[in-house]
Amino acid sequence: MAVTRQGRAPVWAKIASDLREQISVGALAPDQKMPTEQELTTRYEVARSTARQALAALVNEGLIVPSAPRGYYVRNRKPLFYRPQQEFRPQPTYPEMDRFMADHSADGREPRQEIDVAIIDPPKEVKQRLKLADGELAAVRRRVRYLDGEPFNTNDSYFPLSIVQNTEIMRPADIARGANEVLREAGYPQARTLDEIYVRMPTPDEVQRLELGPGTPIACHICTGLADDGTPVRVVVNILPGDRHVIVYERDGMEAKRSE
Amino acid sequence: MAVTRQGRAPVWAKIASDLREQISVGALAPDQKMPTEQELTTRYEVARSTARQALAALVNEGLIVPSAPRGYYVRNRKPLFYRPQQEFRPQPTYPEMDRFMADHSADGREPRQEIDVAIIDPPKEVKQRLKLADGELAAVRRRVRYLDGEPFNTNDSYFPLSIVQNTEIMRPADIARGANEVLREAGYPQARTLDEIYVRMPTPDEVQRLELGPGTPIACHICTGLADDGTPVRVVVNILPGDRHVIVYERDGMEAKRSE
Repeated sequence: MAVTRQGRAPVWAKIASDLREQISVGALAPDQKMPTEQELTTRYEVARSTARQALAALVNEGLIVPSAPRGYYVRNRKPLFYRPQQEFRPQPTYPEMDRFMADHSADGREPRQEIDVAIIDPPKEVKQRLKLADGELAAVRRRVRYLDGEPFNTNDSYFPLSIVQNTEIMRPADIARGANEVLREAGYPQARTLDEIYVRMPTPDEVQRLELGPGTPIACHICTGLADDGTPVRVVVNILPGDRHVIVYERDGMEAKRSE
Repeated sequence: MAVTRQGRAPVWAKIASDLREQISVGALAPDQKMPTEQELTTRYEVARSTARQALAALVNEGLIVPSAPRGYYVRNRKPLFYRPQQEFRPQPTYPEMDRFMADHSADGREPRQEIDVAIIDPPKEVKQRLKLADGELAAVRRRVRYLDGEPFNTNDSYFPLSIVQNTEIMRPADIARGANEVLREAGYPQARTLDEIYVRMPTPDEVQRLELGPGTPIACHICTGLADDGTPVRVVVNILPGDRHVIVYERDGMEAKRSE
């Protein structure tokens, strides 16, 4: 099957398009081995460099993953259900969400986390959101969460040092009742939270910390917790690899009515 | 300034790291021209191909954009505030959100949209969410939204054909009071909505439709609207380029208390 140059697309792009289609319809299934460069060279009657370019394009799109020295595999997405509303609403409110979560659960996968605590001059985006004065310090609890031994996401929680310095938040161990409950006990209950979600390519640091493959963008979820008078008491920066998460929210369609 | 190979990082990675740092602290500001390959070659005393590799890495990370034939520029992110809760809650509930939105507004940018309507056998992910029977058709309103003449995002709304075929939803024109209001009038008010947000590299189709540069991942926001009895009446697929959007939600910190 010779592929000839038609229209404006180069030959490698046509081969990539062909393979993409096969992945999309499932003819090439998740975890299945891709045809090798050599096989593509024969099948499409092209130079080896052309076959390589087609495969490289699919790697950059995150559709296949290189696995040296044995070639390429179709990426298997098993996204974890990431539900920001969970912290204040442990169970979903809607039956549809409940079912959807059961379908996407991490059943049988073994969770683990590493925690360290530090006192730092926080990065600019945290400083602004916590409204810290110049030179004012923050406490940060940095967590890497693992599933089946693989790093899954990171979760860095920042607090103004002045309000948490004598609390359990400063100890590098899991807090079973949650840091929000500790804040409440310390006199800083959160009345509301703003979530911001940014989508971008990872930094080299994130690539290393989360063992990200090529073509893997991340969501950066920044969550700011506010006391009733608007004082920010907590900023959490979550880095969520795109191939391992789906972010979900429930919304109430009746809100318009209520606010009328 | 010669860069020598230290530790395990190759020289191009060290140059990239140096430039990344300058972008991060603002020494190289948004829209500013990057040093050319020739300049980097001289400054770091490396081969031109090494300088090129450093710049290519930053392109793939989405930090700089190529602008032939004049070199590379620091990417300028002017993210649009994308607020899913807006459809049922036109004004933010919290003062902090209000301020944040004012800071990120698209003030002065000229919006425009293109709409087409079609009757189709929808893609699998829409079919499942709308619970369509085999062969059951859907109506789709496909929109591309522009700001200052540039494509900004796409918004494809799917409805079971049976419930919208005699409504205004079938006309390829803006519906001032919104499609949700038309659904309500037709006897299908939405009681609740599930939002799913996936993060991935764009397909070639999306690259073309949204004029995406290299290193630009997208968020795919799928929103399913449900009637009170759980019947799905609407699925919207939004494609949001990461360099042009920040997705935001307000959450109520008191939910835990209420549900106790």
